[in-house]
Amino acid sequence: MIHIIILAGGTGTRFWPLSRKNQPKQFLRIPSDRPMLEETIRRVRRLVDKKNIYIATNKIYYATIAKDLKRLNLPAKNLFFEPQSKNTLGPIGCLSWRIYEKDSKALIVVLPSDHHVRFEARFLKVLLQALEAAKDGFIVTLGIKPQGPQTGYGYIKVKRKAQSTKRKAYEVERFIEKPPLAKAKKLIKSKRCYWNAGIFIFKADTLLGGIKRFAPREYHLLSRMKDELGVEQFWPKLKNISIDYAVMEKTSKLLLLPASIGWSDLGSWLALERLMKKDKYGNILRGPCLDLGSHHIVAWSDKQLLATIGLKDMIVVSTPDAVLVCAKDRVQDVKALVQILKQNKFDRYI
Amino acid sequence: MIHIIILAGGTGTRFWPLSRKNQPKQFLRIPSDRPMLEETIRRVRRLVDKKNIYIATNKIYYATIAKDLKRLNLPAKNLFFEPQSKNTLGPIGCLSWRIYEKDSKALIVVLPSDHHVRFEARFLKVLLQALEAAKDGFIVTLGIKPQGPQTGYGYIKVKRKAQSTKRKAYEVERFIEKPPLAKAKKLIKSKRCYWNAGIFIFKADTLLGGIKRFAPREYHLLSRMKDELGVEQFWPKLKNISIDYAVMEKTSKLLLLPASIGWSDLGSWLALERLMKKDKYGNILRGPCLDLGSHHIVAWSDKQLLATIGLKDMIVVSTPDAVLVCAKDRVQDVKALVQILKQNKFDRYI
Repeated sequence: MIHIIILAGGTGTRFWPLSRKNQPKQFLRIPSDRPMLEETIRRVRRLVDKKNIYIATNKIYYATIAKDLKRLNLPAKNLFFEPQSKNTLGPIGCLSWRIYEKDSKALIVVLPSDHHVRFEARFLKVLLQALEAAKDGFIVTLGIKPQGPQTGYGYIKVKRKAQSTKRKAYEVERFIEKPPLAKAKKLIKSKRCYWNAGIFIFKADTLLGGIKRFAPREYHLLSRMKDELGVEQFWPKLKNISIDYAVMEKTSKLLLLPASIGWSDLGSWLALERLMKKDKYGNILRGPCLDLGSHHIVAWSDKQLLATIGLKDMIVVSTPDAVLVCAKDRVQDVKALVQILKQNKFDRYI
Repeated sequence: MIHIIILAGGTGTRFWPLSRKNQPKQFLRIPSDRPMLEETIRRVRRLVDKKNIYIATNKIYYATIAKDLKRLNLPAKNLFFEPQSKNTLGPIGCLSWRIYEKDSKALIVVLPSDHHVRFEARFLKVLLQALEAAKDGFIVTLGIKPQGPQTGYGYIKVKRKAQSTKRKAYEVERFIEKPPLAKAKKLIKSKRCYWNAGIFIFKADTLLGGIKRFAPREYHLLSRMKDELGVEQFWPKLKNISIDYAVMEKTSKLLLLPASIGWSDLGSWLALERLMKKDKYGNILRGPCLDLGSHHIVAWSDKQLLATIGLKDMIVVSTPDAVLVCAKDRVQDVKALVQILKQNKFDRYI
């Protein structure tokens, strides 16, 4: 049986002021008018029954997620609230154990909840190919063709010759985490590199075997978290470690399957430009907006009337308690802004 | 005794979204942090006792003005609420009557409440000069040296030779209301033109005599408005007419006294630039604002955190229910914007 683990514990405020400490990207209604987490679930609903969809998130998002998921009607017991953030090994390992206990032949798809996939049919097709390979004992990761030398992503370099040519998958040479620009440029020139989208497909016992071998201490802890009491007791002892580092970089069972699925991690307000429909002036207006003569702007309002006059290449975001007006070529500074907010009297706006 | 009539019934939304239908410019805290009406009162407090300060306003501003004036502690009976807007003859005539009834030798200074005066000591000095001329039976208006060929102002052309050279005052040749640009340019070249600031100084009986002579019908109506009942009955019959048109343009008793008092009518958001202190980047930030690398912007926030990044020559105004982001060179379009709001579902934001 196929099971889905959705990772929804991420933080991040690159969509500030829309994204906040208590409302990170996965809960935002971008680029569609549904929360990204909800879109992630809908994307795989044709593949699995909802009783087989699990969500791991941080307990600080309890209220947010409860509201969103009421509509989706998922079983409450499928929500796993991490007592503290422990990167990805914790939630993936813990939920894989629970799924394995119920279904020893379980196939699992791990999906981040804050990415956008444009070509959904193609995405499902690739997942089905990956699941075939997973049945044979491989751990499959989807590889995204780089669109440029991004320094914010993890890269995966594959071996030149795909020794296991099953379904166009490549064996993996190594992982490169967030390379500096020069390195990133070199990587994308090599043609053997893909972005790591954090999507993994495996049999439950394959993964647990990998954890047992490469992270035996964590395996032992995870094996004792079969109920809430176990989680409460042993979760704090887990290392803060990613599944990539703990298992994927070490196992020989990893295959990379290239996936042309229109993937985007929506890294900033600018990413919306590639995904949302613009009006004839190149503007994206969402919410109660009124514009006179602007070009190539993103104007985004929750509730307030947002009036724009004669702007060019700007991002304007209005929420009930905070407003951002940012030149497009300065959008990376939103992160710096949030850092500044953290350090002073404005921290309630984060 | 000197009495002050402050006209505070004006409408106007050029400072939208700060200014609204129920909160026009005279109630805004610009450019200081006190409402303009309050600044107007404070400006003349050294000249008169507060029991001699009268305010005429529209009854739709009752709530706004009551709140503001509580702090100033003016006698409630000095507030005159116009049942409908009837331009300036109505309120000036009516209050002049009431003042005359109490003090037949009363000297009156009429002041708009939505103008800024930078040089207050000089302003008081000019008023005292004007009051001297008023004692002699003249009606004095202060003339502002034009700063440019503004088309939105009324101009007053004086006679080349000041026949009555009392205190540097000029006799008036004619009034020119809101001339087209070419005409305005010609006017300011002539060196004999001043802007009409709507400030008048006269003896009560001089003005009432003027109304009696040049607008006898209105005089009759005004004479019957000595109490609330009279106002209720006769106010609606008043013509919608300005004191300028009804009396000033016709009387031979008018003198213009040039006044270099740093006058500004604060015609748009841009006007703040000349009056408020800028930071070293040329920015004016008011309220909870946080800026990264902007230049020459006005950022104005009531309550919300307003974050600006990398902007240039912009006006950004944030209020609890509406936000404006406007290129400085398009500030005149704020008026057009408000017109559009009026015509559609957004009219609650006006």
